[in-house]
Amino acid sequence: MPFRTIEWKDGAAVILDQRKLPSEEVYVRCETHAEVAEAIKGMTIRGAPAIGIAAAMGFALGAAENRNAATKDEFARRMAEVRKTLEQTRPTAVNLFWATERMARAMKNRSDSSPDETAAILRDEAVAICNEDLQVCRELGKAGAPLIKDGATVMTHCNAGGLATAGYGTALGVVRAARDAGKAVRVISSETRPLLQGARLTAWELCDDGIPVTLITDTAAGHMMKSGGVDAVIVGADRIAANGDVANKI
Amino acid sequence: MPFRTIEWKDGAAVILDQRKLPSEEVYVRCETHAEVAEAIKGMTIRGAPAIGIAAAMGFALGAAENRNAATKDEFARRMAEVRKTLEQTRPTAVNLFWATERMARAMKNRSDSSPDETAAILRDEAVAICNEDLQVCRELGKAGAPLIKDGATVMTHCNAGGLATAGYGTALGVVRAARDAGKAVRVISSETRPLLQGARLTAWELCDDGIPVTLITDTAAGHMMKSGGVDAVIVGADRIAANGDVANKI
Repeated sequence: MPFRTIEWKDGAAVILDQRKLPSEEVYVRCETHAEVAEAIKGMTIRGAPAIGIAAAMGFALGAAENRNAATKDEFARRMAEVRKTLEQTRPTAVNLFWATERMARAMKNRSDSSPDETAAILRDEAVAICNEDLQVCRELGKAGAPLIKDGATVMTHCNAGGLATAGYGTALGVVRAARDAGKAVRVISSETRPLLQGARLTAWELCDDGIPVTLITDTAAGHMMKSGGVDAVIVGADRIAANGDVANKI
Repeated sequence: MPFRTIEWKDGAAVILDQRKLPSEEVYVRCETHAEVAEAIKGMTIRGAPAIGIAAAMGFALGAAENRNAATKDEFARRMAEVRKTLEQTRPTAVNLFWATERMARAMKNRSDSSPDETAAILRDEAVAICNEDLQVCRELGKAGAPLIKDGATVMTHCNAGGLATAGYGTALGVVRAARDAGKAVRVISSETRPLLQGARLTAWELCDDGIPVTLITDTAAGHMMKSGGVDAVIVGADRIAANGDVANKI
């Protein structure tokens, strides 16, 4: 991967600042759970899976901040505050709650450990969540790649790419896996107003990765599909209904 | 009117520079037909009716430039060049060709006049075209206003406002006429990517005129109509089909 959206490095969460893309590739170092919460709230990092990883690392940082708590009860009380702070950043991101729940469970499973030991366990759990995300995206890509024929044009909306995950992507993971399987593939990306995740992020990461990409206005999507040349549409699934319908943003 | 999109002043076409809106209200003075052609090509002025007026004024300026032509034939030859230059600026704007045709007819009707006399006639014709546009927009507004109920929300796309005409507008002329008839009216304007005529121009001129306006992304138009609150949609008609269908941009 040419870039990492979020990574655990020397006791901190290092986050690629997505507000500055595509003009600058700047990494922000978060050393406290409050800094991670700010990064999520301010959209330094976005994309549901990436937010989940950030929340897990924020949880681990909160544990490190409180590793010297006098008692286990005191530690647990403070960690409940850490969790609340993280969960209030982006209440629509399902992965955020999934990640804090998983971190809280890891903490509970080791309720016999000291705060200091628990902090180490939670750091390992956060790193595991990040690595699993990379692995899951690669598997998802491999599963989806056979659906993409050689020479295909794939349309996407917003950014469900490496920048929405630890680094490989869900929708764009399928595109990457098809390319890695030797297929020619090009992408049509919508701008995605008003925050331009397509224009700023999807176009940037595909250029960065050497995958041809054409940017269109959001309202040109129907015309592009009608006038041919679009073989598949792959988008992130903000929600999936029981009948298989997928919801993304308008 | 709080502003004039285009106006004949002291032997020149004075054009409000729409590329600089909404951050700056700058007027450009065009003293030659070539400067007018550049203004149309570079979108200093846009909107079909406004382009028609600009072309007429460019035609008049071309006549003034050539008022000292040695013979009527020489004058006619040079004016054919002027017309060609103007018509090549924006081949999709119907009003452009309508205006140059009307100017050419005014010139032909006075083929007994000297180039100098003809130049004066053409200046008067261009000013008449500009004044007629204002009048036509006001009449159109009056005809449309009864369709707008008191308290209505009108959705529009792009800019079919004062900035697309001499100053009163077609679609927004109806809104203005309804307001002038004492009705409360508010507008929902789409951004209109990629050139943002809605965000930059429609929102600006409505704010300037004291009419409440809400800006939405282009793809939110369907949601706004579905979730209620939109009583009418009025857009410019780039083309009208025989069955009454209206085409604007995607």
